[in-house]
Amino acid sequence: MNKSDQQWRVAVMPGDGIGPEVMAATCRALESLPNLELELEELPWPSHDWHRDQDEMMPADWRDKLSGYDALLLGALGDPGPVTDPNRYYLPDGVSLQPLLEIRKGLDLWACERPAVPMVGAPQYLADPRALETDLLVIRENSEGEYVDQGGRLGVGSERETATQLEVFTRTATRRIIRHAFDRAEQRRRDRQRGLRPLKSFPYGAEQSAQASASVCVVTKRNAVRYSGELWCDVFAEVAADYPHIHTQHELVDACCMKMVTQPWAFDVVVASNLHGDILTDLAAVLAGGMGVAPSANLNPDDREVPPLFEPTHGSAPDIAGSDRAHPAAMLLTAATMLEWMGESDDAAAEAAALLRKAVADDLAEKGMSGRSCTQVGEEIAQRLANTH
Amino acid sequence: MNKSDQQWRVAVMPGDGIGPEVMAATCRALESLPNLELELEELPWPSHDWHRDQDEMMPADWRDKLSGYDALLLGALGDPGPVTDPNRYYLPDGVSLQPLLEIRKGLDLWACERPAVPMVGAPQYLADPRALETDLLVIRENSEGEYVDQGGRLGVGSERETATQLEVFTRTATRRIIRHAFDRAEQRRRDRQRGLRPLKSFPYGAEQSAQASASVCVVTKRNAVRYSGELWCDVFAEVAADYPHIHTQHELVDACCMKMVTQPWAFDVVVASNLHGDILTDLAAVLAGGMGVAPSANLNPDDREVPPLFEPTHGSAPDIAGSDRAHPAAMLLTAATMLEWMGESDDAAAEAAALLRKAVADDLAEKGMSGRSCTQVGEEIAQRLANTH
Ligand SMILES: CC(C)[C@H](C(=O)O)[C@@H](O)C(=O)O
Ligand SMILES: CC(C)[C@H](C(=O)O)[C@@H](O)C(=O)O
Repeated sequence: MNKSDQQWRVAVMPGDGIGPEVMAATCRALESLPNLELELEELPWPSHDWHRDQDEMMPADWRDKLSGYDALLLGALGDPGPVTDPNRYYLPDGVSLQPLLEIRKGLDLWACERPAVPMVGAPQYLADPRALETDLLVIRENSEGEYVDQGGRLGVGSERETATQLEVFTRTATRRIIRHAFDRAEQRRRDRQRGLRPLKSFPYGAEQSAQASASVCVVTKRNAVRYSGELWCDVFAEVAADYPHIHTQHELVDACCMKMVTQPWAFDVVVASNLHGDILTDLAAVLAGGMGVAPSANLNPDDREVPPLFEPTHGSAPDIAGSDRAHPAAMLLTAATMLEWMGESDDAAAEAAALLRKAVADDLAEKGMSGRSCTQVGEEIAQRLANTH
Repeated sequence: MNKSDQQWRVAVMPGDGIGPEVMAATCRALESLPNLELELEELPWPSHDWHRDQDEMMPADWRDKLSGYDALLLGALGDPGPVTDPNRYYLPDGVSLQPLLEIRKGLDLWACERPAVPMVGAPQYLADPRALETDLLVIRENSEGEYVDQGGRLGVGSERETATQLEVFTRTATRRIIRHAFDRAEQRRRDRQRGLRPLKSFPYGAEQSAQASASVCVVTKRNAVRYSGELWCDVFAEVAADYPHIHTQHELVDACCMKMVTQPWAFDVVVASNLHGDILTDLAAVLAGGMGVAPSANLNPDDREVPPLFEPTHGSAPDIAGSDRAHPAAMLLTAATMLEWMGESDDAAAEAAALLRKAVADDLAEKGMSGRSCTQVGEEIAQRLANTH
């Protein structure tokens, strides 16, 4: 279905903490984009007031309500609640974040995409200047694995207490995520050949000239957590056979985390399980300049009728919430990611995505990340966009 | 039992790849230490020749054989075997590394300790100069959790294939590792008060003056992997109550990995499960200057009769094995860690540990890590030690 010249209905969920601030700045910017038919509808849930009514983090019919939209844009989740109540110790991350996992699983948004491309103007944590050449994309399995939430605690508090957690990996979900990673690598290869993306060659750093201009690295812990690791490696080898132009790599998760810091430029597409992906995407965010500039997309690549969920990788930062001090870059880049997704079937959206991404990059490069209020940054990006048309 | 003035019998296991080279340089240095009664006995297994006889990675009576020693010193494990044989795809990490996990579990070496203190002369990966103030110790649970190796693959190769991995966490093992982390923090606190370790105060960076001079950070993924996460948090709170002078922190594993890169100086002791610890110790190694300088100890802190296993965190680096190019710093620092452990009950060993550590640090600071052969570094360190007495 081609959505070109169509109106896009977006559910805007500001969420908790700094969510409402960065979302307001982002909506301000989105509204100044030309030629784009975006209908932004604000939904009051997941709510930053969850602790006043904690049995209902979301309405019972949340799935029906959300399914009507073309895309979901989320600010941030996580509310520490009244910190003086010791019973609420687990609540901030254990309860107020549940809607995130529920939406991902409930809508079967099985692919999570988090790119790492260093932004000039954002903090640079790595000493090696080659880190600036990093251009990687982590594809995280978003529907099963370590996150199935199966298990329990036997004999709570007793000497014999034993907690179990079951990890479940199906061939079906493993194959679709690995295939998606190869599809993305194939896109990157084509973009590189057309000069739309800086050229890289793999095996990276090899003395021979480039064999391939894209690579997929599969991450496992097969030397210690072997059943899932072997399934992933088997499926990876099968899928790879269908993509002869893509270079392949394997890394153990511990070594991969290390290399993300010591030589991030040697990666292209990285595909990993839910938990490994969770960890690797946080490290990828650091490479790009930290959580302040890290966008994220949760998609169902098989079914464009399922509304994807776009959210910054950062949390709700309750310590600075309400002070208008959060920088909205990650939220703005998340919105640009959403527009890029729309742009796959709508030229106006593709154009808007490019405008917004450039406005954010220029703003960061010129003004850096400190010294301005969240509102001001939103305002200045909106002005910049208004001046470009 | 006080071992002072006693002889220490050490099983030396060079292992695979660069193991024999770095071990030879290290034994050379150990032998030039004064006043120390060390008997180094080389054992031919775990063997770098595993693929010639792969059903026997270790003798059947390995436990009896190893139990007689005071300590085990291992070079490196992991042999890629003949890389042309596709059936050996899993073998390098899946088979040749098994003895490592078998020894850890079989001897109940339930605590793995990996410090991160930046070494002058080793690579510095982080841009922020405060990274040089890092002084952290990761304590990894070494006996259960994600590494119990329970599970399997149902319907291998079929559409319905499902791989399961069970994680098992007992209160007993969780408590002993958390208690050990607090004991180490208590030691660090005392050392800081006596000026033996650079002072830090926690909560780190707080505006008030120091509340505590040591801290333990517990790492979980309780917001998504909740049964184990809740058990760890409950036990952590119980144990912490016995250590009122130690500051406490909690980090989710993804955020902890990120902070290890963005603000490593804010940690002191970090305690984590087997897999989380595996990942965090690789990142800790990066902070210290990379795998080339990262020692590690596997201990049973409850029972000094069980021989601890000391090994560098690095692998066998088959690509440079045999070329005398590996730098032996990690192996030398691992030997120093072994001597420190002996030094808890033997003054001569404690003194030797300090001498060796200083010789390695001075050598690195003066000469850096490149340009010399492994043999030459071993020789120069030995000379340096000979000149100090
Ligand atoms: C909040 C938490 C459950 C979530 C996750 O683990 O997926 C977050 O860390 C993320 O990466 O989006
Ligand atoms: C070789 C492997 C099984 C091992 C582990 O995961 O424990 C290694 O990565 C380590 O950290 O010592």
